[in-house]
Amino acid sequence: MKSNIYLPVTIILLTFLLMSVCGKTQNNPGNQTVWALALHGGAGTISPDMPDSLKQQYYDGLQQALRVGEIILKDGGSALDAVEMVVRNLEDNPLFNAGRGSVFTIDGKHELDAAIMDGSTLAAGALTGLTTVKNPVSLARIVMEESPHIFFSGPGAEEFANQTGVERVENSYFHTETRYRQWQRTRPDEASLLPDGWLEGDKYGTVGAVALDVDGNLAAATSTGGMTNKQFGRVGDVPIIGSGTFANHFVAISATGWGEQIMRNVSANTIANYMEFRNSSLEEAINFVLTQRLNPGDAGFVAVDRDGNISMQMNTLGMYRGSINSLGEQVVRIWE
Amino acid sequence: MKSNIYLPVTIILLTFLLMSVCGKTQNNPGNQTVWALALHGGAGTISPDMPDSLKQQYYDGLQQALRVGEIILKDGGSALDAVEMVVRNLEDNPLFNAGRGSVFTIDGKHELDAAIMDGSTLAAGALTGLTTVKNPVSLARIVMEESPHIFFSGPGAEEFANQTGVERVENSYFHTETRYRQWQRTRPDEASLLPDGWLEGDKYGTVGAVALDVDGNLAAATSTGGMTNKQFGRVGDVPIIGSGTFANHFVAISATGWGEQIMRNVSANTIANYMEFRNSSLEEAINFVLTQRLNPGDAGFVAVDRDGNISMQMNTLGMYRGSINSLGEQVVRIWE
Repeated sequence: MKSNIYLPVTIILLTFLLMSVCGKTQNNPGNQTVWALALHGGAGTISPDMPDSLKQQYYDGLQQALRVGEIILKDGGSALDAVEMVVRNLEDNPLFNAGRGSVFTIDGKHELDAAIMDGSTLAAGALTGLTTVKNPVSLARIVMEESPHIFFSGPGAEEFANQTGVERVENSYFHTETRYRQWQRTRPDEASLLPDGWLEGDKYGTVGAVALDVDGNLAAATSTGGMTNKQFGRVGDVPIIGSGTFANHFVAISATGWGEQIMRNVSANTIANYMEFRNSSLEEAINFVLTQRLNPGDAGFVAVDRDGNISMQMNTLGMYRGSINSLGEQVVRIWE
Repeated sequence: MKSNIYLPVTIILLTFLLMSVCGKTQNNPGNQTVWALALHGGAGTISPDMPDSLKQQYYDGLQQALRVGEIILKDGGSALDAVEMVVRNLEDNPLFNAGRGSVFTIDGKHELDAAIMDGSTLAAGALTGLTTVKNPVSLARIVMEESPHIFFSGPGAEEFANQTGVERVENSYFHTETRYRQWQRTRPDEASLLPDGWLEGDKYGTVGAVALDVDGNLAAATSTGGMTNKQFGRVGDVPIIGSGTFANHFVAISATGWGEQIMRNVSANTIANYMEFRNSSLEEAINFVLTQRLNPGDAGFVAVDRDGNISMQMNTLGMYRGSINSLGEQVVRIWE
């Protein structure tokens, strides 16, 4: 009778031993996600009547950016490298409101914001009001890695850039004809920041990426040209750690939408806290913030958790978005 | 027998009727808090060997600021008015690192940050890098009430000020001899932001206030001259909604401490979320953030919840702090 107990006990103990020795592999058996990436190129009222050729350009842009991240993550690269390089790619694409292709401020210039966060260390870097840095997300990473500070603004941010080897451009580099025409349409009513004829889709331009790498680290990055016709010096949600950008050991999140609404609800951190404190899924946490905190039309989020679950939800009509993971599952969408 | 039932039923119904008519009074019987206020003047390694005369100056300063808020709240004034006027008072007091008495930046100037938030509406206003606004907290309130934006930085923030009637001063107005000597002590090692001989207590200067008014509304405000010897354009936690300053329907919080640590942990919003999502007390929520998220020596918080519970906790050696409520309970402390 007694010896009959030893066998199952030994088996259980051996199983635990094997599990602890092969921990990493056990956590990631063949059919489980080992890396994952999601990105967005902004959310808002994106008209489904958009010409097919333009739709195709957006799909191509999203797919190219996914490919940039895929190559890094598949090769065992870090989540941090992946989100930085994906966001750089989107900044360089004039279709999206970040880097080249940024919207115009009320005085006809370009002011760029960006942030990056390493979920494994909670290290972060953020900038607002950049005017001559070609890729704001890469300067954010330098702030994160080389400065005791997290966040620099305006002329101080430009001065910080002077101390680095980051690529500089004239402010006119960010100019594109499409954004210029958008801005012109908003000019007749300068007094109002939300004039008649405002295209909602123009207001919510942002790009962002989140990733989980094969080492289990999470990272998030976001970049934007801000709001068309925004006032000089306005800071939106993108560089605010906890609002537009956040990553910790549980989840990495990048937001897009009406910056002020995202900020007053500290949206990204609230998603992360809801998951942790309510022990909820990522999907439930984002749904909570979209339905219980924000109003319809406010925002969209892309996020990935430490188990590789990806969520891309919005309460706007559309969000340029895409995701890919190590199972080869790929999604590229604009509307539902 | 039957008529015996009518009397107690009638009494119960009448009681409910009275309770609904006199709702406000019922919710606030004689011994329950109807308004509450807490404030801080910074946290850090404050030496208990401080001369008694200086200690007395700090106690007097904190008491005067409490009195400003008490007069407003006792008279049925709003939490928003109370926190604005209390923080103005602390900004005007050269003892504290905000407004007059602000620390020096690395290039010998003063850059001021402030934020205010109305918990009843989640409206917020914030500024960073102000150089000529006498009372940053009052400009933050104007941003909150008159701008579609929440947050302005640097020259854009000054330009916004130009459009208002807010009182302006020369940057030298913020200069005090004590802060100048502090800054001089940090100069020999300009390359380092945390030079030898650094006084921890100098690093963590901030002022803040939180209040609950008789209408049940909560508000928070924070203001600072930043970090001694900080780099040009550095943005700390104070103007970051959710980090240094936050208020909603549950709680109002103002933080002080090492800004970068407070920011990467999105500390104020995490306290609010912990209370709400874990259904915890305010005391437990702050304790969670101080012990599970932050490191010893990082920060202190003053907070008040919708029931009038006040919490003032820190993991630093000291925090200049005080509180008062409608029961006449008053606390003024620097160390434990």
